[in-house]
Amino acid sequence: MTELQRIQRLILEATSVLGRETVPILESLGRVLAVDTVAAEDIPGVDISAVDGFAVFHGSLQGASTQSPVPLRIIGESPAGRPFGTGVGRGEAVRIMTGGVIPDGADAVVKREDAEERGSLVVFAASHGPGGNIRFKGEALKRGETVLFAGEVIGAVEVCKLASLRRSHVLVHQKPVVAIISTGDELTDFHEPSLPGKIMCSTLYGLAAQVLETGAVPLLLGVAQDDPAEQRKLLSEGLRADVVITSGGIANGKYDLMRQTFRAVGVDIKFTNIALKPNKPAVFGAINGTLIFGFPGNPSAGMISFEQFVRPALLKMMGRNYFDEVKQSFFSSIDSFRPDLKGGGPLRASLVPDRGPATGKGKPS
Amino acid sequence: MTELQRIQRLILEATSVLGRETVPILESLGRVLAVDTVAAEDIPGVDISAVDGFAVFHGSLQGASTQSPVPLRIIGESPAGRPFGTGVGRGEAVRIMTGGVIPDGADAVVKREDAEERGSLVVFAASHGPGGNIRFKGEALKRGETVLFAGEVIGAVEVCKLASLRRSHVLVHQKPVVAIISTGDELTDFHEPSLPGKIMCSTLYGLAAQVLETGAVPLLLGVAQDDPAEQRKLLSEGLRADVVITSGGIANGKYDLMRQTFRAVGVDIKFTNIALKPNKPAVFGAINGTLIFGFPGNPSAGMISFEQFVRPALLKMMGRNYFDEVKQSFFSSIDSFRPDLKGGGPLRASLVPDRGPATGKGKPS
Repeated sequence: MTELQRIQRLILEATSVLGRETVPILESLGRVLAVDTVAAEDIPGVDISAVDGFAVFHGSLQGASTQSPVPLRIIGESPAGRPFGTGVGRGEAVRIMTGGVIPDGADAVVKREDAEERGSLVVFAASHGPGGNIRFKGEALKRGETVLFAGEVIGAVEVCKLASLRRSHVLVHQKPVVAIISTGDELTDFHEPSLPGKIMCSTLYGLAAQVLETGAVPLLLGVAQDDPAEQRKLLSEGLRADVVITSGGIANGKYDLMRQTFRAVGVDIKFTNIALKPNKPAVFGAINGTLIFGFPGNPSAGMISFEQFVRPALLKMMGRNYFDEVKQSFFSSIDSFRPDLKGGGPLRASLVPDRGPATGKGKPS
Repeated sequence: MTELQRIQRLILEATSVLGRETVPILESLGRVLAVDTVAAEDIPGVDISAVDGFAVFHGSLQGASTQSPVPLRIIGESPAGRPFGTGVGRGEAVRIMTGGVIPDGADAVVKREDAEERGSLVVFAASHGPGGNIRFKGEALKRGETVLFAGEVIGAVEVCKLASLRRSHVLVHQKPVVAIISTGDELTDFHEPSLPGKIMCSTLYGLAAQVLETGAVPLLLGVAQDDPAEQRKLLSEGLRADVVITSGGIANGKYDLMRQTFRAVGVDIKFTNIALKPNKPAVFGAINGTLIFGFPGNPSAGMISFEQFVRPALLKMMGRNYFDEVKQSFFSSIDSFRPDLKGGGPLRASLVPDRGPATGKGKPS
């Protein structure tokens, strides 16, 4: 196990799968089913025709042949959705469409092309056994059968299956809410004026976009100045979320106060000082079930940290198979990540954390 | 070119890229940029420090060495976002943080660890050339440089770049609106009671989910009974959308009226009778720029038809590189498609259309 994997495991151990919520099926795409879905009734619910043709009692056609064709009287029709009211007797036929309910007394359907209509009669030139061209009650699905299993990710096919079962809503795992805070006196947000020496809090928006891409809900708490009271205020506000990510204020500079703020608020810091090229340390902790991630302010470093540390945790919270998904998303994302403004080559993300300063702080606690 | 590819090409030739709209950057994920994004100003906008340390005029440190260290007077500080008001003269230093504006008169930054503070003085044991540890105005990006190009798909990294440039909104290609109609007397929707012989219009929801997955907007017009007037009414309502998909009523049964409805409404039918196992014909046409797809009512057949015929068109409308994307999505989707309720194996989608009936209707017109 690499050091990175060890840290990811540490994070995942501190992460719980979230509870359930009911959503309309068209809003469930990409969500994870929280319970098995069991058929409440047979499908089809009654015997129906598999073709367009004529529903008959097979005995009526006994001995029919080209030499001695058998005429039956057409007594009505059974289109899909409008069952024929009464039964079919010997010597009678009911015109039926695909999906039409098989009338009482009928036990076979003869395809339209194997019969010849003559006014109110229909003539058959061959005999037929019972059961032909009928889709029997429960043939597709028996009441009580499990159609979808808890843990499945819902796609378009699953939505279609749920609709078939008349499930308008579905129970899925909740989406985590992820509060995001940027910190730094130099940062401004869109709602503030742009002044000389100030830069946009772009990492805030990059991280929010990553949260959305993961399927979770970002809560953009905005910019905290390099001021312990303001940081504490925003961080406290973030604690009602499932996850808090802070960007900036995490290094050892005079104004890098975020770690002190974490401690002041009572965060149980589980590791600190992970070396993440091209940048500075990261911090991970937890308080009352909320996960706290402190990342560097640099957009590239923050966004790579998200991929490495936050995405796996969010996937686990949503009930997804995070190990497989993360392996894939992590390596593909590293190749395609070019948040530096000029494009350039992919970022060199060091997967090997440093050995820590002489104080030994570099080791996860 | 296979027959399927020929038909896909026919559809794409009838498909136009949609116009533009402005959306907030966090709503632009997965959308396609409609114009180049050019930097309106230099980044950084002024010279800033790349490290925590001291901003000095390099001439002040001439001849400094361990044997003869040079003390400078600390006259103030320049943290990120709060520029030092006045200039730095010979013999003076300004404490500066990463991202802090370089004060007038300073032309180098010496790292904190290469200096020693003694009260109001800071002592240097080495000389330094000009320019050290400074990120110069426009170093990351020059005003007028193109940062993102029209046609790029917007991901989290692009959102971060747009935010860096203070773009709160972005011009992207519009999403197509896709009206969906199911037809059949046997169908009911969630808002209607479930009666014997009736089944849910599950294809409606499966198709709507596919539209959502593609990034477009479904408009669920609901179920039309097997009645020409009702079909015409819903179809006419659908014509204000960019695309209309109908499910059912497309075969040759007595109640399969959809093709007649298409003609009644004035749809220019471009092909019909494509064989699509495990099912029935499909129809494609257009009217006043709206694309019309008529698919079988069977969920599997309808959803595979969507993958083959509609998804490429929707991707083109949204400005995406549909050829590449479709190749990938199509083949992966065919393997994973199991809309039959029991799970079972993947659907056998015939990629080879039939040779058409004797009338020659099977050939695209």
